[in-house]
Amino acid sequence: MTLKIAHLGPTGTYAEAAAIAYTKIKTSGADFQLQPYANIAQTLQAVAEQEVELAIVPVENSIEGSVTMTLDTIWQLAAPIHIQQALILPISHALISVATDLSQIELVYSHPQALSQCQEWLQQHLPQAARISSNSTTAALTTLSTLPHAAAISSVRAANLYDLPTLVHPINDYADNQTKFWVISLEPTSIGSCTSVAFSLRSNAPGGLMTALGFFANRGLNLSRIESRPSKRSLGDYLFFIDIETDLDYRELKSALADLDAYAETVKNFGSYETMIINST
Amino acid sequence: MTLKIAHLGPTGTYAEAAAIAYTKIKTSGADFQLQPYANIAQTLQAVAEQEVELAIVPVENSIEGSVTMTLDTIWQLAAPIHIQQALILPISHALISVATDLSQIELVYSHPQALSQCQEWLQQHLPQAARISSNSTTAALTTLSTLPHAAAISSVRAANLYDLPTLVHPINDYADNQTKFWVISLEPTSIGSCTSVAFSLRSNAPGGLMTALGFFANRGLNLSRIESRPSKRSLGDYLFFIDIETDLDYRELKSALADLDAYAETVKNFGSYETMIINST
Repeated sequence: MTLKIAHLGPTGTYAEAAAIAYTKIKTSGADFQLQPYANIAQTLQAVAEQEVELAIVPVENSIEGSVTMTLDTIWQLAAPIHIQQALILPISHALISVATDLSQIELVYSHPQALSQCQEWLQQHLPQAARISSNSTTAALTTLSTLPHAAAISSVRAANLYDLPTLVHPINDYADNQTKFWVISLEPTSIGSCTSVAFSLRSNAPGGLMTALGFFANRGLNLSRIESRPSKRSLGDYLFFIDIETDLDYRELKSALADLDAYAETVKNFGSYETMIINST
Repeated sequence: MTLKIAHLGPTGTYAEAAAIAYTKIKTSGADFQLQPYANIAQTLQAVAEQEVELAIVPVENSIEGSVTMTLDTIWQLAAPIHIQQALILPISHALISVATDLSQIELVYSHPQALSQCQEWLQQHLPQAARISSNSTTAALTTLSTLPHAAAISSVRAANLYDLPTLVHPINDYADNQTKFWVISLEPTSIGSCTSVAFSLRSNAPGGLMTALGFFANRGLNLSRIESRPSKRSLGDYLFFIDIETDLDYRELKSALADLDAYAETVKNFGSYETMIINST
């Protein structure tokens, strides 16, 4: 049996590195086939529409925070998607270019998250260069060999894959830079030390957020993360993404989620899963 | 007496429009002088270093969410900054270019927030155009008249200021698009219907976030917003920005903040203030 894994492409992205690491962890039984998509939304839609069995998407970086495209798309999908596993990948960015000197570089291409993670380095070493947002860190690499005035921010692994020179490495502003990925499928999951849920509230509920969080706090369930995203209905109206620490008591979790279901406008339970630290080699 | 107001420049930004509206509200006494800065961090540093009395910075958009550069800089500033007022500005983006037809456009410049707020329009109408991140929506307008293959996303007001044609308007993906700005100074503030606080927790505190939020919930104080930002120390270690509804009881607020001060690692109280809806005309 071959399981298809969607990830952000083209080849060489950090998401692909996470997908390769995942296939090495899951050695029993299935074969895997990696399938690149042009952007994060399409990667997630591929699972929702059953073009693939799994998708691996970045959800959060230790320096720049949430990958908002992932959170916003996951909320909007009609299909019930579930998190099978979280993967944490160390990130080490390189400046890739056929230029022989920094002074030749006028354009720097990368994903907005990578541009932000190197913003101080860029400010110091390439203050005049235009920063160009790509759908992925590798999107510009296919044409970079013909662009002596351009550079891209991606991994050394990606530079090697495209046979391009690494001009400077590492260039991330913080040495301790990690990205968390979610492995997503339509399969329900119910056991794991972390449970991720998103919810919206009825807009006229006074004290709504504290009431909703109280369902967990009153049962001794801790939240390791709360992320607000705009509902896009009006300013001050939010969706909330929460991570609940759930290795302790599933009965309490079930009862808290039942209260949340009854109280909130919409609840999406992405399931319970474990987190693993991986490497890109 | 002349009060200097720092804002993101060059002239024509939405922050400048908010600053102009603010000077019209505050008619009593002082004269105002607007002073543009090249990026949001420098705008805030100008207040911290007392180059100016006030700074007006975007903090949150109804579609794309937090302006992370503002939150991250406010946290890092050593000077005790305070919010005097929140201003909510309706946002209506235009595609500005000397091109006569969309098919000529190969590059689109704007601030990353504006590019995101128009991402569906760009995907539909300019799928092949490169998106270039600028420090502000107006940074590219000074050179745009000489670039027939380029466009910028900014306001109609900005197009008029730079004597440039508006090719398409509006182009934001959601018609109801608003940005909240904070008016910031070193003056303490203590009365207003909203109080904004940021805090970090000692990393070994189990259940830390729920304990911290409990100081407010147990006193009947509602939070209208919780935003997590990475502490940049390690993945899963956060700063929390909260907005507390405080028109009701300042005694309860004071006592909750005293508990938070004793419990948290670092607390920054940005003060209490009112929110006003403004217009850019």
